[in-house]
Amino acid sequence: MSETTTGAGLDQVQVVAFDIFGTTVDWHRGIREQAAVAFARIGVDLDPAAFADAWRDRYLPAMARVNSGERAWAYLDALHRESLDALLAEHGVDDRIGEDARRDLVRAWHRLPAWPDSAQTIERLRRRYTVVALSNGGFALLVHLLKHARLTFDAILSVELARSYKPSPTPYRTAAALLDVDPEQVLMVAAHGWDIDGARTAGLRTAFLERPGEKGPNRIHDLAQDSETDLAVLSGDDLARHLNC
Amino acid sequence: MSETTTGAGLDQVQVVAFDIFGTTVDWHRGIREQAAVAFARIGVDLDPAAFADAWRDRYLPAMARVNSGERAWAYLDALHRESLDALLAEHGVDDRIGEDARRDLVRAWHRLPAWPDSAQTIERLRRRYTVVALSNGGFALLVHLLKHARLTFDAILSVELARSYKPSPTPYRTAAALLDVDPEQVLMVAAHGWDIDGARTAGLRTAFLERPGEKGPNRIHDLAQDSETDLAVLSGDDLARHLNC
Repeated sequence: MSETTTGAGLDQVQVVAFDIFGTTVDWHRGIREQAAVAFARIGVDLDPAAFADAWRDRYLPAMARVNSGERAWAYLDALHRESLDALLAEHGVDDRIGEDARRDLVRAWHRLPAWPDSAQTIERLRRRYTVVALSNGGFALLVHLLKHARLTFDAILSVELARSYKPSPTPYRTAAALLDVDPEQVLMVAAHGWDIDGARTAGLRTAFLERPGEKGPNRIHDLAQDSETDLAVLSGDDLARHLNC
Repeated sequence: MSETTTGAGLDQVQVVAFDIFGTTVDWHRGIREQAAVAFARIGVDLDPAAFADAWRDRYLPAMARVNSGERAWAYLDALHRESLDALLAEHGVDDRIGEDARRDLVRAWHRLPAWPDSAQTIERLRRRYTVVALSNGGFALLVHLLKHARLTFDAILSVELARSYKPSPTPYRTAAALLDVDPEQVLMVAAHGWDIDGARTAGLRTAFLERPGEKGPNRIHDLAQDSETDLAVLSGDDLARHLNC
């Protein structure tokens, strides 16, 4: 685990934008637990943690095809459904899992547990900053997810509003424009190097929040030391203190 | 004042969308009080209440010119600034009020007091429904305004996301689409007949919330009896009870 580093030049920050999947909520636990229930009900012998890994592995390439223009804008739920269908076929269980179960699995991404420190961190930061969600989840997905997880932001910003996925610069800049601030007045908080890199390229300031376990029990989480970031922190409390909250 | 009427067929409502200016916050008091302070500071002899009336009178025609295509999309702050400039010229005080004071007056629309029952009503309704703001204010304006007024919605939806002002059907339908519900699953709560009419035309369900004093001390507020609406209520408490919250 890398050491906490203090970011200089964050005085102009007015908006703190949180990534959601992995940074604010524990997507891996949410998906593997809901998948375990679904598989047990159907009697399918798939390892839920490995299934969650494989499903997520298809996430970045699917979004990259949208950003490259290889395919038109598609909602995250649609991408999740396509990759789920492909994954179940690959595992030879295509005929065992019906339409209802597939819909439920896609909806599992709307019901994920918050990390234990998320609610309190957001609340602390809101006293001093405008604090928003900025996620690759669709707008409706985020509204459901954040309401279910009891996380209250000043506003929800989905990449759907820009019809372009992170790490393309467009959604980061659209977020700043909608909030009527310059990109460098926004601090992007994320647990993934690709998100930090995308935000920095778009002109935002960045805070790498490491989330051990974010990729589940089988993989190592992204490390701040591998990215160029204004601030590297190991917890929400750490982040709030660095931002004088 | 009209009697409360109960709306039938509201069982399918999943989203409650609140208009903001006049319905959730007392724009007239906010504008006339901030204008009074500004005029006193500058030593300009204008009646703040009449000034607030006249400024608001230019609001609907300015938005109608955008919706008709007579002019391109313009942010509400820009429309407020243009109508302020015209109004000050008309009153012969054009050379007395400088750039800073004009900017402050436009920003007065970002700082308006909530009606006394708004916060509690939104909180009650959020236990059962997804509760959102749907306003002609720009996205940043709404984020500032609602944070300042301490009103917490599940999400903020500005007509800026549709680049079309209410009462055009577009922003109502864009809101439903972003929330992944059908128009008839959205209940629009508004204190103005034109907003109720626009929402109904777009296929939403409607609740007319009368707000006496909403147009200030010199004018009568819009009455529910003059509109066709699914529900007519006289307070936020009344609204919450009718929606079983």
